[in-house]
Amino acid sequence: MTHFKINQKDIFYILKEQLGYGSLCSLERYESLTEETLDLLVTEAIRFAKKAVAPLNEIGEEQGVRYEKGEVICPAEFAGVFRQYGRDGWTAAARDTEYGGQGFPNMMRIVVNDFMYGACQSFNMAPSLTHGAAHLIESFGIRELKEAFVPRMYDGTFAGTMCLTEPDAGSNLAATQTTAFPEDNHYRIKGNKIFISWGEHNIAENIVHLVLARIDGAPEGVRGISLFVVPKYRLNEDGSVGEFNDVVCTGIEEKLGLHSSPTAALSFGAKDGCIGYLCGEPNQGLAHMFQMMNSARINTGVSGMTLASTAYQNALEYTRQRIQGSDAAKRKTGFVPIIDHPDVRRMLLWMKASVDGMRSMIYTAAFWADLASEGESEQARKHYQALTDFMTPIVKAYCSDSGFRVCETAMQCLGGYGFCKDYPIEQYLRDAKIMSLYEGTNGIQAIDLMGRKMRLNDGAMFSAFIQEMEAFIEVRRDHEGLGSHVGNLADAFGRVREMADEMSRRSQEDRLQWASYTYPALLCFGDLVMVWRLLDMACIAWERAGKKGRKNEFFRGKVAQATFFADYILPHTIARAGICLRNGREIVEIADSAF
Amino acid sequence: MTHFKINQKDIFYILKEQLGYGSLCSLERYESLTEETLDLLVTEAIRFAKKAVAPLNEIGEEQGVRYEKGEVICPAEFAGVFRQYGRDGWTAAARDTEYGGQGFPNMMRIVVNDFMYGACQSFNMAPSLTHGAAHLIESFGIRELKEAFVPRMYDGTFAGTMCLTEPDAGSNLAATQTTAFPEDNHYRIKGNKIFISWGEHNIAENIVHLVLARIDGAPEGVRGISLFVVPKYRLNEDGSVGEFNDVVCTGIEEKLGLHSSPTAALSFGAKDGCIGYLCGEPNQGLAHMFQMMNSARINTGVSGMTLASTAYQNALEYTRQRIQGSDAAKRKTGFVPIIDHPDVRRMLLWMKASVDGMRSMIYTAAFWADLASEGESEQARKHYQALTDFMTPIVKAYCSDSGFRVCETAMQCLGGYGFCKDYPIEQYLRDAKIMSLYEGTNGIQAIDLMGRKMRLNDGAMFSAFIQEMEAFIEVRRDHEGLGSHVGNLADAFGRVREMADEMSRRSQEDRLQWASYTYPALLCFGDLVMVWRLLDMACIAWERAGKKGRKNEFFRGKVAQATFFADYILPHTIARAGICLRNGREIVEIADSAF
Repeated sequence: MTHFKINQKDIFYILKEQLGYGSLCSLERYESLTEETLDLLVTEAIRFAKKAVAPLNEIGEEQGVRYEKGEVICPAEFAGVFRQYGRDGWTAAARDTEYGGQGFPNMMRIVVNDFMYGACQSFNMAPSLTHGAAHLIESFGIRELKEAFVPRMYDGTFAGTMCLTEPDAGSNLAATQTTAFPEDNHYRIKGNKIFISWGEHNIAENIVHLVLARIDGAPEGVRGISLFVVPKYRLNEDGSVGEFNDVVCTGIEEKLGLHSSPTAALSFGAKDGCIGYLCGEPNQGLAHMFQMMNSARINTGVSGMTLASTAYQNALEYTRQRIQGSDAAKRKTGFVPIIDHPDVRRMLLWMKASVDGMRSMIYTAAFWADLASEGESEQARKHYQALTDFMTPIVKAYCSDSGFRVCETAMQCLGGYGFCKDYPIEQYLRDAKIMSLYEGTNGIQAIDLMGRKMRLNDGAMFSAFIQEMEAFIEVRRDHEGLGSHVGNLADAFGRVREMADEMSRRSQEDRLQWASYTYPALLCFGDLVMVWRLLDMACIAWERAGKKGRKNEFFRGKVAQATFFADYILPHTIARAGICLRNGREIVEIADSAF
Repeated sequence: MTHFKINQKDIFYILKEQLGYGSLCSLERYESLTEETLDLLVTEAIRFAKKAVAPLNEIGEEQGVRYEKGEVICPAEFAGVFRQYGRDGWTAAARDTEYGGQGFPNMMRIVVNDFMYGACQSFNMAPSLTHGAAHLIESFGIRELKEAFVPRMYDGTFAGTMCLTEPDAGSNLAATQTTAFPEDNHYRIKGNKIFISWGEHNIAENIVHLVLARIDGAPEGVRGISLFVVPKYRLNEDGSVGEFNDVVCTGIEEKLGLHSSPTAALSFGAKDGCIGYLCGEPNQGLAHMFQMMNSARINTGVSGMTLASTAYQNALEYTRQRIQGSDAAKRKTGFVPIIDHPDVRRMLLWMKASVDGMRSMIYTAAFWADLASEGESEQARKHYQALTDFMTPIVKAYCSDSGFRVCETAMQCLGGYGFCKDYPIEQYLRDAKIMSLYEGTNGIQAIDLMGRKMRLNDGAMFSAFIQEMEAFIEVRRDHEGLGSHVGNLADAFGRVREMADEMSRRSQEDRLQWASYTYPALLCFGDLVMVWRLLDMACIAWERAGKKGRKNEFFRGKVAQATFFADYILPHTIARAGICLRNGREIVEIADSAF
């Protein structure tokens, strides 16, 4: 038995009832698919996650990964599952068939990751990074590069990484110092990278690093960064794995969590023996890498959400079984399961709404991403691309921070037992913490949202978001049962729009004051999206929720979580929007010595 | 070098400028003391914490504790420091001299614990529990018991524990099953206890357990529980340590944190060889134990606060040194230390205010506790006892949850480095998490505050609190610079009072709805106390804050943290007070199957 738990009914409710994801099959790229094939993919992915991936979580946590003289030894079971994961098509589920993909909609990659990350966060980073790296080569590399690497990455023979961070270039990639010296049809790579997830391991035949570096003589700053394909082992003429490419792992980090995901420091070309291949245009490396980074940011939100999801499900099961204390209203005699205690129910309902709302937020954004790339008209594609761009920092930051908060609340439901390693929640809490920190800290996401995403294309991204919100409010404002809650959402939305407009002005006129409140501003948007998605589900569930009978409790649950969450959160959203606009300048003006 | 960091100036500001703790020396019990002796105690305690206790934190985290066939092996360095801690007078700093105490004010025990817990949470639980156990014997035991155990517990020869929890009696002590069978001048003890902090170890000559058990035939429920002194080794006639008393450690927990504090499962009398001595009145065990529990609850808040404090100081140091990114307002060229980034400053200022506010809250409550026991008039003692009782659940729950939040925010300041074990913050985060869970979960604290503490003695506790708040508001409402913030506090306070009154009604008429919102209600009170203490400090600092010069930045910092925190928090307090009174009954009515 593993600890991974998921409520399949909740998942299909979002996919089918809320999003009608089968409609994607009417798009040209997916015309050979039907909703039934998509459903089958979902159930098969859940089955694989439970059977193959979930057991790795306890094995990995128990054994961890070991560094020995440049090598990283992973638990023995990892290699086989990594290979099978690729071969069964999970790595490239959403990629074109040309290089070995399955041709499913892009959103299915997110849905599949939901289950796989939930089953074992540490392990699933390996195929997920491999996918991202291979997809970069597929998108920007020349044919020879694609043929050499992509199929073997998609099928689980090779693994991949993204190598951005250096000791002095973390959030600030402008400081990148790794250098590429041109030579024949390739480059000599020299430099050090740190914090490289799955940067070294023994679960695949080769590791293909996607490395940011400066071509010797390139301009300073981010405009001089290029993208390179740098394998751990070079390939022979016939494509077989050849000699060592002077990519040396100099150590791995000891971390709070993710104990079976090696976080490597890598030295490229210390002995001048490291060659790499330019991927895409020179000096466009950061732009290219952003394809992978945007997708990694969404995946970070997915991880935060899905760890929260399984933490919640584990807490729920515990509260049903643990007998402790008497019923507050004396409805039952003797001691009762703690799910009967209102304070425990408050935590459960908040977690339920948080998880379902975040999952809906993420699936919705993933659905939009498909319409952005495969939509039928130029106009539609633009609209959905704008929405996707707007949602990316919200998904990343909100779902990571809120996901962590759910893990914390799940632990609280277990009392002292939650602190013990006999239960899985303490691991979820530790693993989830990284989500706020990597792939751009949440502070950086907030600056992205309230800066670039508000400003670019004359505010087209924010406009697209407003359009979607207004359409929902318009349709549901007079809903017989939920109209007043929709009205509250509209009020909060109005307040947040005023805040965003004023902040946009400040971003030009008073940048320090603006930057002092970007993070709480992002939270306001996260709140709005949560309440919107939950109320949307509640409206869909409304009719059946009103019918008698035990089988309709599920629908009443959708309504209950929405009205509770809206009332529990929106007053804070409005409060926070006001706070973002305060004129007090303490943050800017306090002397460093006064901290 | 250890990671323990503390701002001594902030500490003395609260003690001397805000509380005027030297005034305690005018009370009869402390008439031999002066403010200078108290100051000396503080600086000596900090010195001892830094020099002797702080090194244990890394040693303990590195080595942990080991269970081997009933024995628990601690790092070798712990025993010596435990002994020295007692011998130097830290364990019994606030106890009467009769049994080996130092006779300092009660509040100094809290102040000393601030530093000792901050230096090493895991270790300091040992002397702190020893103090609590010994003080119970001193308060309720017969003379022979006191003489046999108390001096050797205070001087670090023996250690002590509190044994409450059983597998089916955690939050609900009514389910206690451990039994005491009368025999000669003692009892035979039989039963199993779990989650016993420092329940077994090798750092003292003996372990004196304070055990809750039922005398054979006692009434059911909490009215049949008595308190027993149960040593690990019996004492010989001459007082020397004698034969084993059949208290067997059957295992220790693997935990998220507190890795060098053994959490033991204990079996008492499995071979019928365990004797114990009644401490205090039969069937009054829980009432007696509450002396220790109340003090443990305050100490839990102290731990949450002080771990937050050192986490903040570590984050602050990091942000001053870490160079990353450019200045948002282009005030400097090149890359800058991240303390220059407004979003980082927002986190720092929030942490600074949180830590200083919590410390002030705790020291204030500790000061009141002294006036409660040593105050000059019956009326004064009653007033301050009521305040202390009211504050206990707030200190415990607010400072544990908010302390954890500070640790999380401190980690955020470090980005990916914060997740790594090279920095101490991930340990603070793990160690701090227990504070919300043990000594009564925070949910239980909230029920205590909004139930018992509002109701008992015709609401005398709440009235005492209102009186103190109103006195502050009255005096500072027209303050030239801070009056408007005091006015905002008054408004929020008014709203929270309405909420509390209405909730008290509900606690009688609609208990399930009431219990659904007790936790957010507690947070409202925590917020009010924080803002009050911070504004109080700001008013005191005001005059010097207005003067020019670098040396007055400290005072400007006191003002800045108060106005920022008040504006950043009170809108949420008001929002939350409204939420507590909502009529939606989702928490109560949602079907269990719908979760």
